[in-house]
Amino acid sequence: MPVTTAMSESTSIHSATLVSLESGIDLGPGLYFSDGKRKVDYILCYKYKKRRASKSRLSIASNGSIPAPLPGRWDNDPDAGAGEPEESKLTEEEKALMRDEFEAGLVEAGLQLEREKERSNGLGFIRLHIPWSILSREAELQKIKVPVKKVSVYIYKCLNLRSHLANRSTLCFDRKYFGEQIGLYFAWLGVYTQLLIPPSVLGIIVFLYGIFTVDANVPSQETCNESLNITMCPLCDGVCDYWQLSTVCSLARASYLFDNGATVLFMNLWYTAACFLEHWKRRQMCLKHAWDLTSLEDEEVVFQEPESLDIEDHLSGYLINVSTLLFLVFVTFSAVFGVAVYRICMLSVWSMNPDPEAKASVRMTVTTTGIVLNMLVVLVLEEVYGAIAVWLTELELPKTKEEFEERLIFKSFFLKSMNAFAPIFYVAFFKGRFAGRPGDYVYVFGDYRMEECAPPGCLIELCIQLSMIMLGKQLIQNNVFEVLIPYVLVLLQNYDDLNENEEKRPKQQFHKDFVLEPFEGVTPEYMEMIIQYGFVSLFVASFPLAPAFALLNNVIEIRLDAGKFVTEIRRPDAVRCKGIGIWYNILCGISKFSVITNAFVISFTSEFVPRMVYQYMYSTNGTMTGYTDHSLSYFNVSNFPPGTAPANATVSMCRYKDYRDPPWGPDAYTFSKQYWSILAAKLAFVIFFQVF
Amino acid sequence: MPVTTAMSESTSIHSATLVSLESGIDLGPGLYFSDGKRKVDYILCYKYKKRRASKSRLSIASNGSIPAPLPGRWDNDPDAGAGEPEESKLTEEEKALMRDEFEAGLVEAGLQLEREKERSNGLGFIRLHIPWSILSREAELQKIKVPVKKVSVYIYKCLNLRSHLANRSTLCFDRKYFGEQIGLYFAWLGVYTQLLIPPSVLGIIVFLYGIFTVDANVPSQETCNESLNITMCPLCDGVCDYWQLSTVCSLARASYLFDNGATVLFMNLWYTAACFLEHWKRRQMCLKHAWDLTSLEDEEVVFQEPESLDIEDHLSGYLINVSTLLFLVFVTFSAVFGVAVYRICMLSVWSMNPDPEAKASVRMTVTTTGIVLNMLVVLVLEEVYGAIAVWLTELELPKTKEEFEERLIFKSFFLKSMNAFAPIFYVAFFKGRFAGRPGDYVYVFGDYRMEECAPPGCLIELCIQLSMIMLGKQLIQNNVFEVLIPYVLVLLQNYDDLNENEEKRPKQQFHKDFVLEPFEGVTPEYMEMIIQYGFVSLFVASFPLAPAFALLNNVIEIRLDAGKFVTEIRRPDAVRCKGIGIWYNILCGISKFSVITNAFVISFTSEFVPRMVYQYMYSTNGTMTGYTDHSLSYFNVSNFPPGTAPANATVSMCRYKDYRDPPWGPDAYTFSKQYWSILAAKLAFVIFFQVF
Repeated sequence: MPVTTAMSESTSIHSATLVSLESGIDLGPGLYFSDGKRKVDYILCYKYKKRRASKSRLSIASNGSIPAPLPGRWDNDPDAGAGEPEESKLTEEEKALMRDEFEAGLVEAGLQLEREKERSNGLGFIRLHIPWSILSREAELQKIKVPVKKVSVYIYKCLNLRSHLANRSTLCFDRKYFGEQIGLYFAWLGVYTQLLIPPSVLGIIVFLYGIFTVDANVPSQETCNESLNITMCPLCDGVCDYWQLSTVCSLARASYLFDNGATVLFMNLWYTAACFLEHWKRRQMCLKHAWDLTSLEDEEVVFQEPESLDIEDHLSGYLINVSTLLFLVFVTFSAVFGVAVYRICMLSVWSMNPDPEAKASVRMTVTTTGIVLNMLVVLVLEEVYGAIAVWLTELELPKTKEEFEERLIFKSFFLKSMNAFAPIFYVAFFKGRFAGRPGDYVYVFGDYRMEECAPPGCLIELCIQLSMIMLGKQLIQNNVFEVLIPYVLVLLQNYDDLNENEEKRPKQQFHKDFVLEPFEGVTPEYMEMIIQYGFVSLFVASFPLAPAFALLNNVIEIRLDAGKFVTEIRRPDAVRCKGIGIWYNILCGISKFSVITNAFVISFTSEFVPRMVYQYMYSTNGTMTGYTDHSLSYFNVSNFPPGTAPANATVSMCRYKDYRDPPWGPDAYTFSKQYWSILAAKLAFVIFFQVF
Repeated sequence: MPVTTAMSESTSIHSATLVSLESGIDLGPGLYFSDGKRKVDYILCYKYKKRRASKSRLSIASNGSIPAPLPGRWDNDPDAGAGEPEESKLTEEEKALMRDEFEAGLVEAGLQLEREKERSNGLGFIRLHIPWSILSREAELQKIKVPVKKVSVYIYKCLNLRSHLANRSTLCFDRKYFGEQIGLYFAWLGVYTQLLIPPSVLGIIVFLYGIFTVDANVPSQETCNESLNITMCPLCDGVCDYWQLSTVCSLARASYLFDNGATVLFMNLWYTAACFLEHWKRRQMCLKHAWDLTSLEDEEVVFQEPESLDIEDHLSGYLINVSTLLFLVFVTFSAVFGVAVYRICMLSVWSMNPDPEAKASVRMTVTTTGIVLNMLVVLVLEEVYGAIAVWLTELELPKTKEEFEERLIFKSFFLKSMNAFAPIFYVAFFKGRFAGRPGDYVYVFGDYRMEECAPPGCLIELCIQLSMIMLGKQLIQNNVFEVLIPYVLVLLQNYDDLNENEEKRPKQQFHKDFVLEPFEGVTPEYMEMIIQYGFVSLFVASFPLAPAFALLNNVIEIRLDAGKFVTEIRRPDAVRCKGIGIWYNILCGISKFSVITNAFVISFTSEFVPRMVYQYMYSTNGTMTGYTDHSLSYFNVSNFPPGTAPANATVSMCRYKDYRDPPWGPDAYTFSKQYWSILAAKLAFVIFFQVF
């Protein structure tokens, strides 16, 4: 960029921040103005904790671009980069000497300092003013676009608002105060939340349609009809008795609420996802233009000297990476399987309970506790995986900070989403599909039968699991962890401070801000939202209320996040960035994958296709009458292996949910012609869904 | 672009061309240098044919960017754009006056003119020299990047080569002589041809594998085994007799050459296509950089004044468009159906021929003549569709030349590709699928049975059709039409000229060039190649030799095209463009579509899936033994409707190719369990192919 164009009226250095790159000097939450009497731009807070102050470099960064160091003697320290000496080795005198040296450098560079009286807890603050002439000179040296006139009104307004309630300060939630990165996050969140509205409305309509038509639904009527007297095969070996299909009436009716014909409306889902991505692309383009980010070049912070690394260094890192990732995939699946084993064992133990009351509720209880257990496992593994992802990315020795960030995000996303989605995928596509049939059940660990879904199908279990996650994980976990705990911590800290400081003089803003938690970047926020997007888009066909739940969560989340950013954490450094980066690619990937998932959910998890095939191929009068009978196969109880049959001897035939030839046919218990035709229809539906 | 950067050493005005935008003055094939003695940059050829010369504007265009007119009085002609006066209305005196006025303008603008002696046939040439100072001034006014030094060596070399053999002059085939547009076409053709090599090799390997393993192939052995004595149901009603399966032995063996297990190797096809597109994207990026096209802005030639058109003008155009396109789709399908009717009729007529010799060859003869007929229909419709596409695009009233081009290309491509692919799609996916079964055939026009594929399946017919098109249409049609006919025309023209001109003085280069055909743009070349790409990628799984045939064609085509461009047509105006434009989108579309098509070809047209299902599900010993018997259903000849059974009364059961329950089962002639399981397997294969 030519120097002559560096001065422009269109932008401002509103959020110029003083950073000391390699020093232990914590600059506090950002740019402050005193109450109008004195000119104070920055507060320096001394707290020698991690590194030597003599290594610090003073520079001015506008909007997060990494600045070149100011010319000054502390800049050319020969010790810089020679490892970190232990802090404890420095005496108080050495520390004071270094501090003085650093401050002398600041004064030499033209800054004005004013020292606060040192506190008893070892914290010292220095008011720092950078005169306009120095700012202009630095801006020109570093080719930062600066305004011709000073602008500070806006920031001042924001600062005033900080004392107000959190949700009123969202006015300032744009790049003027927090920088482009956070501005983009909120813009993205806004677009996403807005575009959740149509599918939410559609989902609620589907749900209401289910409620209003459930009484006219023939399959659930038939299930509830006691006079049909359908005797089902026992749910466990020996101790369980035959049971009447009408006992699962309520579950069948509940299942219909989510699995009625209207669910197929979500076939237009890819269109919604494509809309969202397209909409966001346009909005991002607009923001880029409005925020003057088009000319922003990718400046890369080089971590490693490229020549110091050979292929072997990378290779070992990659090998550890691949093997660890494979191991973690295995761990995730083991966890899912472990919970399944828990359910299998609990079910068989509880089934032996002679109390009929307990027996009746056993399945629901085990399902619910299983889901809670699952959620706990997911939460624990998520934290573990986050730490492992950082470790793995460091092993890969990425060359630049951007590369590090992208790889870390990708790895964390892979691990966390796998962790979050694995139990759902298990219920949607695998549970009950390997359970065998009466007389030929599949056993694990000797004599535990593989688990099956509750009688009306796996879809209702999937719905319960999804609603628990959407409501439980999202609303409770995120908001408790993100908002309540930091808030309590701050309260405690303030309480400590009060006790410590005997002098009761009024606290300055920088004292209050210093005790806040530091900002940890927008990655966790994006991660949370994009995993939510995954839940919504991957399983919307099985749980049409998912978008509505997500919308509810986001409306709250935006306000809580805004409040957190303004009042609960230190003010983040302003970071410029062109867009949402790798998250966009991840969103595209999820959107493509969701088309496949929803196709499989509608055709394999829901009963949409079998019902259609029955109606148009096997039904004698073109209605659904007789569907329930048609969907159940016959089993001759004399074919039970010894010891697995119930004691009840009055039953000669029991029914089970499958399409197999009856015991009296030539190929008893093999898959029937219906099975294959329905399978073909399901697969054809998947292709149809994918292509169109 | 600032004026100060307009002069740069990196580019050159090598192909500066004198164009008169709205004049009838034909400038001939471009930039010439005389043999060193005189400075001649352009040849003006007067031939008042279409418009008035007084409307002409002189300007200098570098690399196809549309130039601003030179300041001069003929530029502000008030009559410009006031319709085209009839040429015949101008007297010879008026013409001479206008010519003089135009030439005076040229001289005034600083150009140097030298008049050739006028020829007897009314053609006059003027040698034109633009001094360096004028060129520089114009370049600066129009902000064209010009070199600091004059460059002409390269062009001179090219011109010398023009007298050499065509295939030796491909050296010059880049933008230095022909401009970026043609350079890009040849670069693209090169990349495409190069990337045809791996699939060609793979295709030849698959074919050779078929040749070497055909004797070990159980299904074709079983077909050829006369001792199995499989009696097939008659191919036509009444007059046709039962026939032995072993009589189609050779077709079954031929079919195996293309439909052996190795064909599934083409499942990696999407990868090849993605590779090609990715490779081209990189190459284009490199070329853009090397040819300095990055800063090229899209300058648009506005056809219509936007305010002069209201929505109704567009609407009627769109309506006519849509209805015409629908009508043409209908015409195409009718043509395909017409040829099918021809085959059905011919087959039933020839079948009545009592000569057994004729009867034996009837199917092959009808198939071959059908394909030839198809090709003729396709060729005729292609020309018609090309004309209709132009008409339709004009009706749409596009605003700019670029928009016109894109819409025209898209429409032509849609019509021509539909025309070219429809017969192939018919054979691949529809032929024989609606023929019914013995005893319940489908009839058209009263008593003509719907056509079926030849006994070993439709795949071999598909292969014949594709090879005919690849060899016939590509090699013969394109090259005859594109090269031979222009060449003959030129020869004829030269002969005429010789007879006409009594004076035998040696001809100048511009006399020779003037008689050449004008260049018609690269669109037909792209169209031809991209339809070829469609044939190769859409049906590679059914005809693995397609890439090899395409490669052969392209190796010849590049040389013939190069020769044509240098010697058979006038030198094209240099046109700058950033890339291959809408063709890239079309290529992407074809590549995506080809994945679907190949999945359906492998699973539905070839016998890959039924063979796999037999081997792993129904075979008693895990081999293919018994497959032929398994794939044929039984028909009880007593179930033939009266009058359709053959006279032969010794047969009680005949066989037909389908999976239906036998006559002795409970559901005689309904689709069997095998049918549904194979259908499910086919659909699962399609999904597998698409997802991975």
